[in-house]
Amino acid sequence: MIVVMKEGASQSEIDRVMELLKSKGLGAHLSVGVETTVIGVIGAKEKVHELGIETLPGVEKIVTVSYPFKLASRPFHPDDTRIEIRGHVVGGPEPTLIAGPCSVETREGLLEIAHAIKRSGAHMLRGGAFKPRSSPYSFQGLGEEGLKYLADAREETGLAIVSEVMEPGLVPLVAEYVDVLQIGARNMQNFPLLKAVGRTGKPVLLKRGFSNTIEEWLMSAEYIMAEGNPNVILCERGIRTFETYTRNTLDLNAVPVVKHLSHLPVLVDPSHGVGHARYVTDMARAGIAAGAHGVIVEVHKDPTQAWSDGNQTITLEEFDQLAHQVRAIHQLMKTFEPAASLV
Amino acid sequence: MIVVMKEGASQSEIDRVMELLKSKGLGAHLSVGVETTVIGVIGAKEKVHELGIETLPGVEKIVTVSYPFKLASRPFHPDDTRIEIRGHVVGGPEPTLIAGPCSVETREGLLEIAHAIKRSGAHMLRGGAFKPRSSPYSFQGLGEEGLKYLADAREETGLAIVSEVMEPGLVPLVAEYVDVLQIGARNMQNFPLLKAVGRTGKPVLLKRGFSNTIEEWLMSAEYIMAEGNPNVILCERGIRTFETYTRNTLDLNAVPVVKHLSHLPVLVDPSHGVGHARYVTDMARAGIAAGAHGVIVEVHKDPTQAWSDGNQTITLEEFDQLAHQVRAIHQLMKTFEPAASLV
Amino acid sequence: MIVVMKEGASQSEIDRVMELLKSKGLGAHLSVGVETTVIGVIGAKEKVHELGIETLPGVEKIVTVSYPFKLASRPFHPDDTRIEIRGHVVGGPEPTLIAGPCSVETREGLLEIAHAIKRSGAHMLRGGAFKPRSSPYSFQGLGEEGLKYLADAREETGLAIVSEVMEPGLVPLVAEYVDVLQIGARNMQNFPLLKAVGRTGKPVLLKRGFSNTIEEWLMSAEYIMAEGNPNVILCERGIRTFETYTRNTLDLNAVPVVKHLSHLPVLVDPSHGVGHARYVTDMARAGIAAGAHGVIVEVHKDPTQAWSDGNQTITLEEFDQLAHQVRAIHQLMKTFEPAASLV
Amino acid sequence: MIVVMKEGASQSEIDRVMELLKSKGLGAHLSVGVETTVIGVIGAKEKVHELGIETLPGVEKIVTVSYPFKLASRPFHPDDTRIEIRGHVVGGPEPTLIAGPCSVETREGLLEIAHAIKRSGAHMLRGGAFKPRSSPYSFQGLGEEGLKYLADAREETGLAIVSEVMEPGLVPLVAEYVDVLQIGARNMQNFPLLKAVGRTGKPVLLKRGFSNTIEEWLMSAEYIMAEGNPNVILCERGIRTFETYTRNTLDLNAVPVVKHLSHLPVLVDPSHGVGHARYVTDMARAGIAAGAHGVIVEVHKDPTQAWSDGNQTITLEEFDQLAHQVRAIHQLMKTFEPAASLV
Repeated sequence: MIVVMKEGASQSEIDRVMELLKSKGLGAHLSVGVETTVIGVIGAKEKVHELGIETLPGVEKIVTVSYPFKLASRPFHPDDTRIEIRGHVVGGPEPTLIAGPCSVETREGLLEIAHAIKRSGAHMLRGGAFKPRSSPYSFQGLGEEGLKYLADAREETGLAIVSEVMEPGLVPLVAEYVDVLQIGARNMQNFPLLKAVGRTGKPVLLKRGFSNTIEEWLMSAEYIMAEGNPNVILCERGIRTFETYTRNTLDLNAVPVVKHLSHLPVLVDPSHGVGHARYVTDMARAGIAAGAHGVIVEVHKDPTQAWSDGNQTITLEEFDQLAHQVRAIHQLMKTFEPAASLV
Repeated sequence: MIVVMKEGASQSEIDRVMELLKSKGLGAHLSVGVETTVIGVIGAKEKVHELGIETLPGVEKIVTVSYPFKLASRPFHPDDTRIEIRGHVVGGPEPTLIAGPCSVETREGLLEIAHAIKRSGAHMLRGGAFKPRSSPYSFQGLGEEGLKYLADAREETGLAIVSEVMEPGLVPLVAEYVDVLQIGARNMQNFPLLKAVGRTGKPVLLKRGFSNTIEEWLMSAEYIMAEGNPNVILCERGIRTFETYTRNTLDLNAVPVVKHLSHLPVLVDPSHGVGHARYVTDMARAGIAAGAHGVIVEVHKDPTQAWSDGNQTITLEEFDQLAHQVRAIHQLMKTFEPAASLV
Repeated sequence: MIVVMKEGASQSEIDRVMELLKSKGLGAHLSVGVETTVIGVIGAKEKVHELGIETLPGVEKIVTVSYPFKLASRPFHPDDTRIEIRGHVVGGPEPTLIAGPCSVETREGLLEIAHAIKRSGAHMLRGGAFKPRSSPYSFQGLGEEGLKYLADAREETGLAIVSEVMEPGLVPLVAEYVDVLQIGARNMQNFPLLKAVGRTGKPVLLKRGFSNTIEEWLMSAEYIMAEGNPNVILCERGIRTFETYTRNTLDLNAVPVVKHLSHLPVLVDPSHGVGHARYVTDMARAGIAAGAHGVIVEVHKDPTQAWSDGNQTITLEEFDQLAHQVRAIHQLMKTFEPAASLV
Repeated sequence: MIVVMKEGASQSEIDRVMELLKSKGLGAHLSVGVETTVIGVIGAKEKVHELGIETLPGVEKIVTVSYPFKLASRPFHPDDTRIEIRGHVVGGPEPTLIAGPCSVETREGLLEIAHAIKRSGAHMLRGGAFKPRSSPYSFQGLGEEGLKYLADAREETGLAIVSEVMEPGLVPLVAEYVDVLQIGARNMQNFPLLKAVGRTGKPVLLKRGFSNTIEEWLMSAEYIMAEGNPNVILCERGIRTFETYTRNTLDLNAVPVVKHLSHLPVLVDPSHGVGHARYVTDMARAGIAAGAHGVIVEVHKDPTQAWSDGNQTITLEEFDQLAHQVRAIHQLMKTFEPAASLV
């Protein structure tokens, strides 16, 4: 249930509703928009109705959300969510560009990549310090050392940094270094981890699991938001299908669907999505044209020497072209009228 | 195997190679490009080597194609294939726009749609006369009557017409009316039908089966081409996955992959691909940005009244917007340098 | 809608209902069971209700079928369908055993296989004469010559024969030779072909398409039955998934589901289902334990020399073991009480 | 690489190989079989060859394992792994029967279920205390209270207990109560959790992720084993496909494949696999016939009143039938000769 307050409802009217809900043991999440303030209510529908909230001063109406996700749903927050990170607004007027190596390798290599992508217009640097690998015998990442290199790169370039956290016990450590905590595809339904990143309040990049439905993805966003953290950035990164020419099938259909169902910003990761460097720029363009708020890609000075994921990693020059093309398509799309069906 | 002739090889040199191959019982398919002429050879690899073709006058080299498809492969025909249909070139400088109702319904309704899409810049009118329906009790199409209405619409508007043919026995009838024979997703591996449309020499729109791999799709194109018909237009229309919010999952990854493996033009069908009118324009834009040569969509004056597929059908006004956006993105992309990896 | 006649309803009472339905342009399909006679009605629900059929003499009640398939549904025919073919009853007390080579190769080889599987207790010989192959350059089958060899094998052994038909135009030819017409997985939604085999009245082995839902499968059975042919045998043969260790994923879940939804007998094809000879016997046993009425497998004297599908083909000795194990499990299962939920 | 010791190799010969490997920084895992002792070596292949191990006394030969999993592979441990838990041997002569409610609810209800399944011949009681739920608003389990009830049930009945652990931080707590730690499908690639359960040395029931390949599943077993814990029990519980009549698609093909590739015991979970109580017994039988070492199912005194997963939960009476049928098929299969291909 969502309590929609009247335009111009006073703070004390809002407080009164919040208090009443909490006094009855219901969850109450406040969302203050430009024009309207809404309160998301979590708990037994019957209880809400008994309280007679619709008759309180300042209350416009009560809306039922038919999706199992509430805080992540568009009705709870009709405007697009915008998340500011070191001066760049994810979900804002410019497409978000995130790039970096699959794994953080050497300090020098990372700095070189950081400077190059900064020049190409990237806003954030990605790099794995703790790596989820199918094999226990594969390189598992540099750990905290890798986080330090990322922080050094931020220091030098001003880029925000994104890195994955894989277990609740390491959330405080990783959160100390990064601007954005990444939840990897394999952990999309690692509920204790979702709660832990939710409690930090830090921006979270939530990758879609490679066989999770859009609904499950938004439910996982809900786990984070239910802990009081509204700063969730969704990221489509490819699903599993029968096709074998591509590593995964980047599901761009999910982009407009998610934008319809939810107010959260959504990025695409064409590197994991298609799995071959040759097609990454094509799919980045397509992602933006489908309506994504930005892209995250794997880049390396020399992909053939990357410690992991080399065949899906593009060069620094290719990233420069990609960034140009992504911005141009994003800019062009601002001139289009919204589809009639979406007005 | 592909025999690549020298630039400027004479007709008699080409003929000599063709005759030698045929005299040994091998298939020989000639492809004359702007600069080079190549001959696709189908048959036992050992035999080809015995013939000593590489020593004949006018022969540049022999290339082995590692894909199971030969005539459909990029090495056999390095330039993009262009197919002219009533003055419009599929695979040419402008994106191809095909629209129309799922089923041909009334003559008047069809003409109204035809005139409207013509004004919006469409090149072809689509409409089902023979309909593959899951249920024997559903409307199966108007049959030949529907083809007549399509021909009338062509007469009035100059639009080329596309319609599906479902069985070998009806290929001559349908081919008499249409400009492009459509092979539906369910028939992508109906091999007798592929051979039959191959024998007509008419352009064929070959939809990808909803669970067929890209390789199988190109093998089905090969069936048509092996009958001597090079005019195959591929069309991605969505694959089956576990996701249920969308009817299918439009696989845009297939677009750059197919363009790399093959010289054939490729369109996308976002109507069947995503299955909800609300997302059709988004996915049409994304398809073009991924590199598709055009789109095919379902339109209707009043989708709520369509006899079939109403929920994935856009209005005539929405098509006008879609056409504008598709053209604008296609135009913008001409200003981009090709990705380094594709040079 | 299904009209259920009273026990002991007279022929003239039945005729009267049939005539009334037909006179109103409705489809009427008669099914005479041991105890009850039912009439399946196809057409507008409203019309049926207007006719007042429930008040006619001999009519017990009218039942609405909530599935889109009617004649194939369990409510239309509460007892299991049994189809007698050369003395063996498919869906009867003994499990059906069908075996043979992927392709019919030589006459001698086929006869040797036929005699061997006959000794092991097989009821039918399978063999492809017209072969659907992904590549136009692969062996496409011996055609009519292959059908003649199959007929010779029947002559010598008494085994019934099963072979695939791929296009409507060849149905009369193939039907002249075989006891059971096979519809391959790629043609499960080749609707003109389904209608053509429906018109023959001959038993049809309908394989499930490798990406078709159970509902679509039963709708394809409905296409055949709607032409007046009740002799449909379903065959699960594996679906497409992301798994690559197996060629397909034999979906045994479909067996109990189909037996619940439909009265038609269902076989399993572990050869195509799992795609490796090593696992065929395991999956054959599992299919029977799941409730299948029999199995169809690929066998060869020397699988390494088979012209097609050798790696999923078992030897004659392995088939002998398989037949023994299948019969033993089927026999054991007769001693089990039906699950309470199915009573 | 695997070092196979000669039959009768002495302890000191074995020690010498172990020490040499460790001194060079290589992983060395000892596996003592009835007849042969083998040492699994993890590390650079080149290093192993340099050491000249094949010339040491007591060494029979060195075998290369072509799979990415080593300790979990059949070559490392040619005999089936057997794991004794409270007197019952998983992978032994009798099929393992595990049953219980989806969630632990009340103490009384749990005890009633425990006594009933004990009477039906079950070996272990399952029940969720910490529950992974898609929604943050769904019942998340009783936590430690639930574990206490499970321990009480063990006390009263002698049944071993199995319960899921969802995060590394809770492994010590859960391990204190249960006999078998369950890793749920959503956590199959939660690598920190796999390492944590690996370090306990306790038996682990490792469910297959609903979109994980067989290879990834065995790699996850490898994670546990690489921590020194050989007691891994695999459990197939259904994969995601396009089919919607069933909740998941129980992939029984995985059973013989896993038994070929690995020595670990494998169970099937038809409750989650097919998702409807009606089909659970059919699929349990099929799983055993495919070669599974046992089954795990959800049971409840009154499934309609279960707090979660009621529609896939069978009654205590149905479990009694299931147990009987599973044992009978397992017993019958002992009379079969192994398939020739598996000898």
